[in-house]
Amino acid sequence: MEDKYQFTIELEVRDYELDSEGIVNNAVYQHYLEHARHQFLCHVGYSFAKMESEGLMPVVSRVEINYKSSLRSGDVAVCRLWLERKGIRFIFHQDIFNKATGALAVNALVTSVVVKNGWPTRGEKLAEFFKDYL
Amino acid sequence: MEDKYQFTIELEVRDYELDSEGIVNNAVYQHYLEHARHQFLCHVGYSFAKMESEGLMPVVSRVEINYKSSLRSGDVAVCRLWLERKGIRFIFHQDIFNKATGALAVNALVTSVVVKNGWPTRGEKLAEFFKDYL
Amino acid sequence: MEDKYQFTIELEVRDYELDSEGIVNNAVYQHYLEHARHQFLCHVGYSFAKMESEGLMPVVSRVEINYKSSLRSGDVAVCRLWLERKGIRFIFHQDIFNKATGALAVNALVTSVVVKNGWPTRGEKLAEFFKDYL
Amino acid sequence: MEDKYQFTIELEVRDYELDSEGIVNNAVYQHYLEHARHQFLCHVGYSFAKMESEGLMPVVSRVEINYKSSLRSGDVAVCRLWLERKGIRFIFHQDIFNKATGALAVNALVTSVVVKNGWPTRGEKLAEFFKDYL
Repeated sequence: MEDKYQFTIELEVRDYELDSEGIVNNAVYQHYLEHARHQFLCHVGYSFAKMESEGLMPVVSRVEINYKSSLRSGDVAVCRLWLERKGIRFIFHQDIFNKATGALAVNALVTSVVVKNGWPTRGEKLAEFFKDYL
Repeated sequence: MEDKYQFTIELEVRDYELDSEGIVNNAVYQHYLEHARHQFLCHVGYSFAKMESEGLMPVVSRVEINYKSSLRSGDVAVCRLWLERKGIRFIFHQDIFNKATGALAVNALVTSVVVKNGWPTRGEKLAEFFKDYL
Repeated sequence: MEDKYQFTIELEVRDYELDSEGIVNNAVYQHYLEHARHQFLCHVGYSFAKMESEGLMPVVSRVEINYKSSLRSGDVAVCRLWLERKGIRFIFHQDIFNKATGALAVNALVTSVVVKNGWPTRGEKLAEFFKDYL
Repeated sequence: MEDKYQFTIELEVRDYELDSEGIVNNAVYQHYLEHARHQFLCHVGYSFAKMESEGLMPVVSRVEINYKSSLRSGDVAVCRLWLERKGIRFIFHQDIFNKATGALAVNALVTSVVVKNGWPTRGEKLAEFFKDYL
């Protein structure tokens, strides 16, 4: 399973991301997941900002997140992902682990589509950048 | 379908919730959904803070969100929900609409469990508060 | 003193705005302050989005915030402000109170300037909208 | 001037921290500043979480932030600080630079006090950890 991962970043938990229970707030994981995808895009030589400037908008159409264990102050989130293409959809398989313990914190499936002028496209340009990963 | 809704709140979009595309950031909808659930809890005479003080921790175990249309500056999010209980799980069916247009912005399914001392409980006390809605 | 206020909005504290101490995180007050200013702008018939679309960018150049007492889950923040103009600067005097107790939570001074094409302007168009308040 | 800095961290700008103008939202800098202080606390062998567990609460009483230039997608924020003690107050002099250009993005003064059971303390334990920096 682990072999499937194509990209990894590490993010330190920041104390302002904790909620009143002292654990990372649920919505913050979506920020981690988004940042990992955007960094992956940079990694392949493209970027969210460049896409925007070209009138291409990668839009998340669906998110599924399973919360498995909590991250806390001082923890490091290891965000790993692998990519799959299904028709016009780019599907990111994303897992977040607790670096110190190796425990799975979150497992997620994020589906996105490239939109241009408000309409979904086939995402060919994005697919070109991702070609080594598809 | 609409008849199923048991609780509704309205939230004005705040400009700091927008991302660089001028639309509400994906993760912000999780905040809207969470706030709607917490307000629902207040509505039935309980609250997240009270649960915490009693050592009961409502934990989200799974979130599914389908993004249907974007909210923008000046929009009002109408957050509606209905509740279902399956075993120890409380499942919130949550939809967010654009008040002005009536368009569905987000449709979501949020599964939560009440945890005590790190272990899932049957959630009987919470179910008691929700008894008119189950 | 209270007579000076020219605009007021109320914001419910949302639980995701709390930090691990169970109080509203310091940075969140900047969000409240910003939202109050943006709503004030809407109140006078203008808006941040409209300004942006006209190439005018209201930029905060300085913020001073004194933290007086904490807001918690269930509290309502009453955000009040009055406006002063000094040369090209628009200075917002902003106070946030706890609705239930009347206690001052935060008192702030926010200085902003209208920027066009990267350069500060005299802000005449904005001043026109605010003319009844200056 | 630069010699005064006692601690430095670098934070990559994350795209969800941008606002609709494509620049880092004003309130986000307060998160950067907070994270730098908390990391400094870890650096000296203490931590915010430990302080909390000992019933000591470092409370920010005042923030002054001057916004000098904007950070954008892809930028790295270099957060530097030096510490001063005045009576019971710990004053953090904090600057944030754009790593690529060296430009000053934000210059800030953050005043905090250690509170115990709701009352300000002299902060002796914290001062002990910071003794090499005062």
